[in-house]
Amino acid sequence: MTEYSIGLDLGGTNLRAAAIDREGKMLHLVTGRTQYSEGRDAIMTDMVEAITTVRDRQGATGLAGIGVVVPGFISLEEGVVRNCNNIPSLEDFPIRDQLSQRLNAAVILENDANAAALGEKWIGAGRDVNDLVLLTLGTGIGGGIICDGKMVRGFMGMAGELGHITVVPNGLPCGCGNRGCLEKHASATAISAMARLLGYGDATAKQVHERAVAGDERAREIFASMGESLGIALAMLVNAFNAPLYLLSGGVIGAWDFFAPAMLAEARRRSFSFRTTNTRVEKAKLGGEAGLFGAAYLPWAK
Amino acid sequence: MTEYSIGLDLGGTNLRAAAIDREGKMLHLVTGRTQYSEGRDAIMTDMVEAITTVRDRQGATGLAGIGVVVPGFISLEEGVVRNCNNIPSLEDFPIRDQLSQRLNAAVILENDANAAALGEKWIGAGRDVNDLVLLTLGTGIGGGIICDGKMVRGFMGMAGELGHITVVPNGLPCGCGNRGCLEKHASATAISAMARLLGYGDATAKQVHERAVAGDERAREIFASMGESLGIALAMLVNAFNAPLYLLSGGVIGAWDFFAPAMLAEARRRSFSFRTTNTRVEKAKLGGEAGLFGAAYLPWAK
Repeated sequence: MTEYSIGLDLGGTNLRAAAIDREGKMLHLVTGRTQYSEGRDAIMTDMVEAITTVRDRQGATGLAGIGVVVPGFISLEEGVVRNCNNIPSLEDFPIRDQLSQRLNAAVILENDANAAALGEKWIGAGRDVNDLVLLTLGTGIGGGIICDGKMVRGFMGMAGELGHITVVPNGLPCGCGNRGCLEKHASATAISAMARLLGYGDATAKQVHERAVAGDERAREIFASMGESLGIALAMLVNAFNAPLYLLSGGVIGAWDFFAPAMLAEARRRSFSFRTTNTRVEKAKLGGEAGLFGAAYLPWAK
Repeated sequence: MTEYSIGLDLGGTNLRAAAIDREGKMLHLVTGRTQYSEGRDAIMTDMVEAITTVRDRQGATGLAGIGVVVPGFISLEEGVVRNCNNIPSLEDFPIRDQLSQRLNAAVILENDANAAALGEKWIGAGRDVNDLVLLTLGTGIGGGIICDGKMVRGFMGMAGELGHITVVPNGLPCGCGNRGCLEKHASATAISAMARLLGYGDATAKQVHERAVAGDERAREIFASMGESLGIALAMLVNAFNAPLYLLSGGVIGAWDFFAPAMLAEARRRSFSFRTTNTRVEKAKLGGEAGLFGAAYLPWAK
């Protein structure tokens, strides 16, 4: 009997559940059908069904555990999401205990970016290091920290909220209450907002990237600005952790060539440790799968 | 035979070495005589003599090890100080190996603020927690991070350089190459510099504090500014670590009543986690002894 684990990733647009074995081989994948606009009950049912489908297929005998990752500030102790911009109906709802009850099995709840860092450490770009910091550049910016091989969770499970690091003290207002959060200056959403300010209308980050590729100087300036903000945050993270590896993931890293030079120059200027050590800043390897793999690894990471 | 360890703290003005037992009881204390202006050789000899005096007195039988803490960016692997503003003659010098050779014993080298965090965790304000972050507010600002009971060292031993976190992106220039480092806006030196800008001449942080106590509004404004800078950094550290306890140490914490309100208000505003969890921000307990105790604990912390 092959030992396996079930991971579920409640992503930005839909959910996926997978059976994954101890070596990181995906045995079975199920994608949810629910639109998040259908509300909490539909999402919960969809999660239970996806996990049940995978478990029925693989059999309960070899199941090491179930890990579920969701976006937002997680309270580990209570197993609830305190703040979830993408799926507000899940806020302050006992997701973990409800899932556990309906599945009749223990469930480990974790933040998506923390899980992504764990996934990259397990079978991705971070395999060869014991310490790494991951930033997920998407609608928002998430963070995950691996220290001495283990995920940094914090006493309430809210560690790694690196998208809310201040990079501009009196910068753009953020839903978290702060101003100038990294995610307001360097996420895909921030890129769109900057494009709008420059008169591009409703351009997506991808469209801004296409303009930059085509030689549009203002589009390139947007990525330079975003890169500088990332560099300020990166310098702080290097000064704090002195990790050998910093990973970036998310669709925006397709524009690496346009933002990375500004990011690295800023980090070099702002961090003595960065300038004087062989600190690597790289693209993550697992892409959109990192959270799913990290979710599956949770039962083994305890 | 009582097991004991020798710690040496190369402080800002002189050095101290102590024999400390496993329960944190100081058995013997020696203070160095050297003026740092006498140069590297004199300092090295003073360190060797202080440690030898303590060892001779206690006997080598029960000695668990020797820990030495110095200010500055330490390269753990090489056992050298890469950047030491207070004692430039020690930069890039193989302190650890030289001490080890002259003492004929293994020596563990560590940064002073990291050691202070370890000391506070061992027998100070952090006894009851597994995670804490310490900021030492002095001439500069040092940082020490304890995660899951262990010191965060980083792959080159340079973690915890929290005085160089950017709090004002285009703020005051710092010797580390950055601008707007926390220590340029919130250390004792920063308080003096702000006082000078307000026409107070060469006032020390202590004198500015006395003026604040006497009701001087501009002196109070200096501490409010310093508190805000600390609050920006604190919010970032709370978002990153979600530790239950953040400690401040150094002479400046005597002015707690003048800077803490601004610091805590800023942290509350800038950190969702801070607002919604019972995160404690407190004065460290061991004062100037934290580094010495942390140094002695190093052999047991491995």
